[in-house]
Amino acid sequence: MRLVGLREAGGNTVVARLAEDGAGVAPICGLEEFWADPHHAVTLPPSGPSLAATDVDLVPPVLPDARVICVGLNYLAHLAEGTYAADGIPPHPTLFARWPASLAVDGAEIPIPPDEDGLDWEGEVVAYVGATLTDATPEEALGAVVGYSTFNDVTARRAQKLTSQWTLGKNADRSGPLGPLVPATEVGDLRHGLTIRTRVNGEVVQEGSTDQMVYTVGDTLALISRTFALRAGDLLATGTPSGVGYARTPPWLMRPGDVVEVEVERLGTLRNTVVARPGRVAQ
Amino acid sequence: MRLVGLREAGGNTVVARLAEDGAGVAPICGLEEFWADPHHAVTLPPSGPSLAATDVDLVPPVLPDARVICVGLNYLAHLAEGTYAADGIPPHPTLFARWPASLAVDGAEIPIPPDEDGLDWEGEVVAYVGATLTDATPEEALGAVVGYSTFNDVTARRAQKLTSQWTLGKNADRSGPLGPLVPATEVGDLRHGLTIRTRVNGEVVQEGSTDQMVYTVGDTLALISRTFALRAGDLLATGTPSGVGYARTPPWLMRPGDVVEVEVERLGTLRNTVVARPGRVAQ
Repeated sequence: MRLVGLREAGGNTVVARLAEDGAGVAPICGLEEFWADPHHAVTLPPSGPSLAATDVDLVPPVLPDARVICVGLNYLAHLAEGTYAADGIPPHPTLFARWPASLAVDGAEIPIPPDEDGLDWEGEVVAYVGATLTDATPEEALGAVVGYSTFNDVTARRAQKLTSQWTLGKNADRSGPLGPLVPATEVGDLRHGLTIRTRVNGEVVQEGSTDQMVYTVGDTLALISRTFALRAGDLLATGTPSGVGYARTPPWLMRPGDVVEVEVERLGTLRNTVVARPGRVAQ
Repeated sequence: MRLVGLREAGGNTVVARLAEDGAGVAPICGLEEFWADPHHAVTLPPSGPSLAATDVDLVPPVLPDARVICVGLNYLAHLAEGTYAADGIPPHPTLFARWPASLAVDGAEIPIPPDEDGLDWEGEVVAYVGATLTDATPEEALGAVVGYSTFNDVTARRAQKLTSQWTLGKNADRSGPLGPLVPATEVGDLRHGLTIRTRVNGEVVQEGSTDQMVYTVGDTLALISRTFALRAGDLLATGTPSGVGYARTPPWLMRPGDVVEVEVERLGTLRNTVVARPGRVAQ
């Protein structure tokens, strides 16, 4: 089962089931109702007839005040290829922030900000928190996860590396495409290893397995929950395997027209096109 | 004029005027209506009778999907006192993220996360973006600012310094108290110098002036707008002067019962109490 968000004409967002063939979407319940009890809501049948996916405005099934918490340097081979290699394995998960405003959906076009030479790919898995977590154990935290999605943590490297903090380069407009939510009951434990594969114009550029993560979903959520209470609807992006573009010789960044796909076993394929973002027209 | 948020019984948030004596609040319009045209909305008269401030639930007048963008190391004397002194003046503003979920109001109690020895203060000014900004010039960006507030960027230092990224320690629960919004027309230009003073239990611990900022509000918003489009309702926290607790000899962090005040000329005083956050009761 794959769940997506759907924005209605009035501006309300509902959560809907995406048909196997992707052609239809069947509304289940409102976005806030879904996240009020997500472990129950994922079991609900559709509340109405199916709509043609081409007729509706698909959006991430994410609350506007959710936190998108991202883990950097969470695969050893990715750590080794990048800027922070000399620092060794971080003793804690390296957490950074996306605002939900940076998220997008499967099929969205991702514009290149004008000061960037291109955009870099980072294929990942996102976990959705499904309950309030305060000072949780790793087991409790993992048990609270209600679903997973394929994610591409598309990065504006120049902005990311302007200073010590990565925030700007991780929040470019529409730079966080997120696949449909697949219930955790259908996915199992990431520690058993789901293959993540990223392709650019059909060429495989990343291939890893979720059993290679340094910090597991349960470990990381448990740590976070000691500083702030996690809430149903918060997201954890679990980090990317090796093979990103900036660390290659020569570097490789996506240019307008490039098609990037992230495919994760059991979660499906997320496909997006990079486009030019024209500079603002002079007035 | 001072504007606050007020959560109604049904869950809706409205923007309201706070009376001079702080005793009454008079609703103006809904939160989304306010941010749809904030330069107009700040001129609106109250739409209904005044309510007793003690009878209502005050909340930050902030959209749930707003971005709270913070500038670190933006006063030279603060840079010189801290961990990053040896790196010199950053060539760009050091931007980090708060999620709006970490914000609180004047008078709120701020709990100390269980792994922290205490909490540190960072008195600041926040600027509210009042229009969409894409590839803006500094002048355009400054012109779009609709108001300012006193802010305390209360920091969980241990969490902040676990890794290279500060995110976790900057998002503890209720760690971002925000004063009322004062229209920009009543504040003028921060470059002309507003005094910021932070007191802990009545003792002055920080005293600076907004004319000491390395990167101005206009410069910083203009830079951000080249990577993502700023929207009405986004916030910029402009950085703290010297005098934070962790950099003192010996270090000084706030403990339960400590009262912290941030006073900014023309913006008023923000007062909060630090409290213990009991660990979760074993089940």
